[in-house]
Amino acid sequence: MLDKVRIVLLNTTHPGNIGATARAMKNMGLKRLYLVAPRHFPNPEAESRAANAADILDTAIVCETLGDAIADCRLVLGTSARDRSIPHQVLSPKECSDLVKQESVDTEVAILFGEERTGLTNELIDQCHYQVMIPTSNDYPSLNLSAAVQIISYELCIANQQNTTKNQSASSQSLATAGEMEFFYHQLEQVLIERQFINPDEPKRLMPKLRRFFNRARPEQDEINILCGMIRALSQ
Amino acid sequence: MLDKVRIVLLNTTHPGNIGATARAMKNMGLKRLYLVAPRHFPNPEAESRAANAADILDTAIVCETLGDAIADCRLVLGTSARDRSIPHQVLSPKECSDLVKQESVDTEVAILFGEERTGLTNELIDQCHYQVMIPTSNDYPSLNLSAAVQIISYELCIANQQNTTKNQSASSQSLATAGEMEFFYHQLEQVLIERQFINPDEPKRLMPKLRRFFNRARPEQDEINILCGMIRALSQ
Repeated sequence: MLDKVRIVLLNTTHPGNIGATARAMKNMGLKRLYLVAPRHFPNPEAESRAANAADILDTAIVCETLGDAIADCRLVLGTSARDRSIPHQVLSPKECSDLVKQESVDTEVAILFGEERTGLTNELIDQCHYQVMIPTSNDYPSLNLSAAVQIISYELCIANQQNTTKNQSASSQSLATAGEMEFFYHQLEQVLIERQFINPDEPKRLMPKLRRFFNRARPEQDEINILCGMIRALSQ
Repeated sequence: MLDKVRIVLLNTTHPGNIGATARAMKNMGLKRLYLVAPRHFPNPEAESRAANAADILDTAIVCETLGDAIADCRLVLGTSARDRSIPHQVLSPKECSDLVKQESVDTEVAILFGEERTGLTNELIDQCHYQVMIPTSNDYPSLNLSAAVQIISYELCIANQQNTTKNQSASSQSLATAGEMEFFYHQLEQVLIERQFINPDEPKRLMPKLRRFFNRARPEQDEINILCGMIRALSQ
């Protein structure tokens, strides 16, 4: 299970946090770290905080865009503390790890962590199937980045060690990948702009709302093909 | 419950870990930090890593001995990864927080964390009622001190929040009615027939597949309005 999970850090500012994340991951049995446009990497501060998890840093994959980091994933989870105007389906860390356990049987999974100060922006959350929220005190809800990774990894470790082979009631059909979903959204947006349903100068968050809706349904490959075909037919 | 719990760090070497511990505690609603013979405290590195949890450092109680730090506690828990010759009763972090929840009703509780390299010695563990072990990977079981505090505090926070406020995960937004869904499916089918995406003489189960997909997403009223508007725009 854990080999199917990648931890994706976006635009990380402090290299020490990257190192501490690598250690948190290795402590819990996770190996695959993706860094999207990190500010300073590689960096001695990252190595120092990683302690005996230097191998996680050595094998980390650095990407320019989030799309590059998650293109082949069928389950994308975004960690966030923010109240959003469009509410996503929100999972606790335990619900997150239960879901990952079920779905990692036949898909790659990405768990995203935003930049230290801002967290994940709405645009980034809109690329996720679910939002994961770590419970906190209201007095000080802003966790250190590596502390957030530690908690999520801890729950994954527990789920992994519970050797109950869960019933794989979830559909065995392969779900659409993030890349296929992006292609669909692109086609949809183009035709909606052409037909003046979306005004590109004043888009009114229509695409984010549609993304939220279609992501929630978790389309299968067969279904995304029908939807893309439908859009093509309607655009003629 | 959380006000009855003190986090006790013994002989901490790196002041940064004391600061990160303060932040981890405050994030999870814990306030009371005891430091037994810290190597460097107070210290600017501790303040920097504490971020907005400086108040936890300001009110931390520095003691010379463990006895001073736990004298009035009726429940003392020691975190440790070590195999001990005399096995203690070992609790998971969740079992630890369940026990603390029960007992904190009428006693002060201390949770001990040893020095970074050695952890709690056997002599220190012998002063505890229970040993708490955080599950880890066998490859690298040594957690950073503040990461260990983060996990224990997270489980305490969850135990504290249970019962107080039940999960409000169910969306209170009103979902589309069956009638509204039928209206949508009817409009969709009409336009797909017009554009020859569906051949009414040989419909190939396309509408049932689309129904299955859209029903699965449980559209809200707001969303079904957007989808109907979209269909109208595309049918022109």
